[in-house]
Amino acid sequence: MDVVKVGLIGAGRIGKLHAENIIKHIPSLKLVAIADQTQDSEWFKAFNGVQWFEDAEELLAREEIQAVLICSPTDTHIPLILHAAQLKKHIFCEKPLSMQAQDIPSALDAVQQAGINLQIGFNRRFDKNFQAIKEAIVSGKIGRPYSLHLTSRDPSLPPLDYLQRSGGIFMDMSIHDFDMAQYIMGSPIEEIYVNASARIDPSLAQIPDQDVAIINLAFKNGALGVINNSRQACYGYDQRLEVLGSEGMIEADHELEDVTVQSFSSHIQTAKPKYFFLQRYQQSFIQELQAFAFAIIEKSKSPVSGWAGYQAVLAAKACERSLSLSRSVRLQEIA
Amino acid sequence: MDVVKVGLIGAGRIGKLHAENIIKHIPSLKLVAIADQTQDSEWFKAFNGVQWFEDAEELLAREEIQAVLICSPTDTHIPLILHAAQLKKHIFCEKPLSMQAQDIPSALDAVQQAGINLQIGFNRRFDKNFQAIKEAIVSGKIGRPYSLHLTSRDPSLPPLDYLQRSGGIFMDMSIHDFDMAQYIMGSPIEEIYVNASARIDPSLAQIPDQDVAIINLAFKNGALGVINNSRQACYGYDQRLEVLGSEGMIEADHELEDVTVQSFSSHIQTAKPKYFFLQRYQQSFIQELQAFAFAIIEKSKSPVSGWAGYQAVLAAKACERSLSLSRSVRLQEIA
Amino acid sequence: MDVVKVGLIGAGRIGKLHAENIIKHIPSLKLVAIADQTQDSEWFKAFNGVQWFEDAEELLAREEIQAVLICSPTDTHIPLILHAAQLKKHIFCEKPLSMQAQDIPSALDAVQQAGINLQIGFNRRFDKNFQAIKEAIVSGKIGRPYSLHLTSRDPSLPPLDYLQRSGGIFMDMSIHDFDMAQYIMGSPIEEIYVNASARIDPSLAQIPDQDVAIINLAFKNGALGVINNSRQACYGYDQRLEVLGSEGMIEADHELEDVTVQSFSSHIQTAKPKYFFLQRYQQSFIQELQAFAFAIIEKSKSPVSGWAGYQAVLAAKACERSLSLSRSVRLQEIA
Amino acid sequence: MDVVKVGLIGAGRIGKLHAENIIKHIPSLKLVAIADQTQDSEWFKAFNGVQWFEDAEELLAREEIQAVLICSPTDTHIPLILHAAQLKKHIFCEKPLSMQAQDIPSALDAVQQAGINLQIGFNRRFDKNFQAIKEAIVSGKIGRPYSLHLTSRDPSLPPLDYLQRSGGIFMDMSIHDFDMAQYIMGSPIEEIYVNASARIDPSLAQIPDQDVAIINLAFKNGALGVINNSRQACYGYDQRLEVLGSEGMIEADHELEDVTVQSFSSHIQTAKPKYFFLQRYQQSFIQELQAFAFAIIEKSKSPVSGWAGYQAVLAAKACERSLSLSRSVRLQEIA
Repeated sequence: MDVVKVGLIGAGRIGKLHAENIIKHIPSLKLVAIADQTQDSEWFKAFNGVQWFEDAEELLAREEIQAVLICSPTDTHIPLILHAAQLKKHIFCEKPLSMQAQDIPSALDAVQQAGINLQIGFNRRFDKNFQAIKEAIVSGKIGRPYSLHLTSRDPSLPPLDYLQRSGGIFMDMSIHDFDMAQYIMGSPIEEIYVNASARIDPSLAQIPDQDVAIINLAFKNGALGVINNSRQACYGYDQRLEVLGSEGMIEADHELEDVTVQSFSSHIQTAKPKYFFLQRYQQSFIQELQAFAFAIIEKSKSPVSGWAGYQAVLAAKACERSLSLSRSVRLQEIA
Repeated sequence: MDVVKVGLIGAGRIGKLHAENIIKHIPSLKLVAIADQTQDSEWFKAFNGVQWFEDAEELLAREEIQAVLICSPTDTHIPLILHAAQLKKHIFCEKPLSMQAQDIPSALDAVQQAGINLQIGFNRRFDKNFQAIKEAIVSGKIGRPYSLHLTSRDPSLPPLDYLQRSGGIFMDMSIHDFDMAQYIMGSPIEEIYVNASARIDPSLAQIPDQDVAIINLAFKNGALGVINNSRQACYGYDQRLEVLGSEGMIEADHELEDVTVQSFSSHIQTAKPKYFFLQRYQQSFIQELQAFAFAIIEKSKSPVSGWAGYQAVLAAKACERSLSLSRSVRLQEIA
Repeated sequence: MDVVKVGLIGAGRIGKLHAENIIKHIPSLKLVAIADQTQDSEWFKAFNGVQWFEDAEELLAREEIQAVLICSPTDTHIPLILHAAQLKKHIFCEKPLSMQAQDIPSALDAVQQAGINLQIGFNRRFDKNFQAIKEAIVSGKIGRPYSLHLTSRDPSLPPLDYLQRSGGIFMDMSIHDFDMAQYIMGSPIEEIYVNASARIDPSLAQIPDQDVAIINLAFKNGALGVINNSRQACYGYDQRLEVLGSEGMIEADHELEDVTVQSFSSHIQTAKPKYFFLQRYQQSFIQELQAFAFAIIEKSKSPVSGWAGYQAVLAAKACERSLSLSRSVRLQEIA
Repeated sequence: MDVVKVGLIGAGRIGKLHAENIIKHIPSLKLVAIADQTQDSEWFKAFNGVQWFEDAEELLAREEIQAVLICSPTDTHIPLILHAAQLKKHIFCEKPLSMQAQDIPSALDAVQQAGINLQIGFNRRFDKNFQAIKEAIVSGKIGRPYSLHLTSRDPSLPPLDYLQRSGGIFMDMSIHDFDMAQYIMGSPIEEIYVNASARIDPSLAQIPDQDVAIINLAFKNGALGVINNSRQACYGYDQRLEVLGSEGMIEADHELEDVTVQSFSSHIQTAKPKYFFLQRYQQSFIQELQAFAFAIIEKSKSPVSGWAGYQAVLAAKACERSLSLSRSVRLQEIA
């Protein structure tokens, strides 16, 4: 088996991105079907030979499909995982796994019993910069890790109706950072404290939601961490990470739009960071699906496990509780 | 009055530094006397015409002395301030004001009633980089501040006997950062949560003390902040600061030993950060004393008030309580 | 006409690269045939529906082919251009146009009379960084240009047998820089002085060839310039450019492999520049062919004219003469 | 002998700077006298105990003076050197040694026969960045040097009357760069080609003088070099240097006014380079005099020899000839 036949469930922004990446860049995946209630027929024109279903169940029923990409709304994730597991189809599922932490363990059990792969869409792990950091830590180049600092800021506040359905800043935005923190440190988050407020747009307090957050992390291995989130950074998408260890520090700085420097009588200026996640993480979206395909072909484990997805949801839940109680919260309180 | 006659109390490392700076760089201060029980006579040779006292009281009694620099051990600060205030001598006092927060208010009252200036030795405020940040914030260039992130790491762990007498990481090291945070944000710290551990040298737990800390700050103006401390950073003294606001972000990066870049087949390399505080803050030590002199000469207020020194002590105390209770602590709980 | 049918002549390294880029990234070009005496059949397997010819004449005879990419050895360029012009097929031709400057004008005449487009493969113009510099100059942001400085260094010396057939450092390597210099400055090179030697590998003197060169340029508009070439730079492919003008300076710095910074007790290190031209100019190879396609479809002029290709050859010839005479040489002496 | 008694001849801008540095920073030099026809008495007030002479001869006649700093106009340098040599007083002389290359050798002979030290005021050698480069080259870190690139640009065009008396861009400005180039490469310049024009202010052509220059250098050891000069750089004083060698490249980048980075929606900005030579080379002016003093005290040779000063003058003269003849000129043609 050299090529894995996949079906895509959910053709919104992220689903479309995966579909396009498969066609252009991932010869080891073959997209055979897409399921979504509404078809963007202009967009779909380019997908010769791909079948369209209005109903995900019909897609799942297609026997030739070996794997599915679940890119539909969050509340469909668990039912679809359970169904796909029953049919022994490998699963790539977008984050978050679920808004309800308690629904996840049984889904993970089903996946395990089915003997299939479940990979969560934490694409940022595959970014070359974060890979370099991971490599430096694993190889011992910076010694024993002391602390991690992760800055993650979006360029601008999403529309209010998006925020109302988002599940909140921790579940929608910080969740990527929880996964990254655990992945980079090679150790689960054990305890969380968060301070957050509707500082950018005070009206978010009515949702209720927050737009600026500083999240303290305690890892199981004894290291400390902090996540610095903002829903708005006028200079662009800010994705930085640094880890201090006994033998050194490693950082990932901004990826800039270009490498020019302009020197004027008033100031020296450089390019801005790449605009948003589609630009910044372009390659990592491709690489996560390549890794998904390779794991299936080589009958090995997917690199971003369902357990990682579960931990990230627990961390988001711990943030919510910490914020309401003004104290640190252990993830096992939530689980 | 163009020149202020000063006496120095305490000729340890920092006292000597101030004495040398006055002689070489600060014509508006005239050092007339030094008080310390032990005289480093080799060092003192260069101070022609300066009187030496074993006892600070004798120095204070000298009528011509208009101002004193208090650089003696922390437990002498409050008594010396009270005495100097009684004699209406202006005071420059090293940090921390006191290990006991409750002793400070009455000393501040005495200072106020004496109508003298009291300046605390938070020299870092005078660094050109942090001045540029302050200026950007005050002038509105970065808009409404959302969050502050301050990294402050020493190059290496001090000796154990220093640590045992240090008052702990928050009182000894983070105290500079509390002052900087409040100064830069133009708003007092209201609430603190800290996570810290003896991660670098686990034996510090027996003091008890910590060597790595991540301190979450809530400012009165609604902004958030975080201080990232470490007693050890093998690459050198790490003093960085960034503030995110609605219209921009401003950061102070490392000050490097030189501006060379070396490119090899294995890697590209730059110089390391300036080694430690004497190198990094060389200019700011001079400028804080210039400011002290100018304020006296111009009969204006000193730029780093006793209140600022008090707030920083409260913040250190709040850290200790937060660490023991695993919850956030408001500064007014301590006051 | 929305898609241009193209034939590729010469399937060496650069020909293969263009073929792959057309298939993956350039929907407005349709590759219908490839001509080369030797077929890399393993590689060719991926090109379903593309015809193979051993003889370029056969490919040119195919009526449906509207445009050809000439990627065969340099001595075939002029005959193929003349032939393609006769058949009114648009031409993309790799650099250099010819080793013999005197053969070029008649070929350019033939192209003009045929009313076809001829684009020379100076792909670097399309790099986003150099585009940003061009844009800054054209828009007047840096005012009146005073001088240009271009650094262009290969990572390692090519094999001797390549060098023997290369036409020399100026024709093989600097030729890209001559084009870039003229393009960026918006003014032709008028006079050249060069100093060069076989400094890296003295045995090159026997070819004779040089491996390090510093080329002094005088532009027609009165500005000055310098090209700093080396056949070897152990730290990687070095492609930098700066222009000083009355109102500012703009530079393109290294494009690094990643944006990580590693800080150790011995030094601070960053990633190396991208390895070689295939990595560094990956996007520009795609964009030059897109531009070629668009110009044909929109019946406009190709962006890199035959005249530019001719000027670059004249500059290379002027370097050779300058080196032998130890004086500056005007390009019109050569033409 | 621990302290060298010096007399200063010429109290213009640079003379005053040296006088102030001696008083504040160089305890091994004792300034005993200053000679200048016009006294800036406001400035001189701070120099208690220093004698003033209107005539340099009177100063030289003072027996206690062991060394003189010659900071008077260029045409007085050679006569003063001859006189001081006769009196066996050590000499520090500002650049250039003379506008007439042919006058220099006999003065150097006189110095040698007197057995005194003559140090030329090429202060930039003492800059920590260029020292780091020199160290990297001498230690073999970058292997065998291939080429040097030196950028040296002043922030703004001096007034016309200064330029008229300056001796021209090569003698006035590039002369520092000739010395630096030879020092860094550890090999004399053998041959020079220059292209230069009055590009910034065309009216300079009437002096005649030039304001932009690109100077090709061939070193005796076979390496190549280029100096990129401009009398104006609106973004500030630009002093950069890079050397490519077989095992690496080393560069000195801009020294910036501070290390802040400001990120806005329009762009990212950093501080500008330090404004001009007084800021940029502040430390190196101190260190060159320290080295002058140490060499006298330790009876060793001064680090910047008269021969170096002569070579730099020859290089400036070679530039003038190259510009008029449009060919490269060997320094031995001039000598």
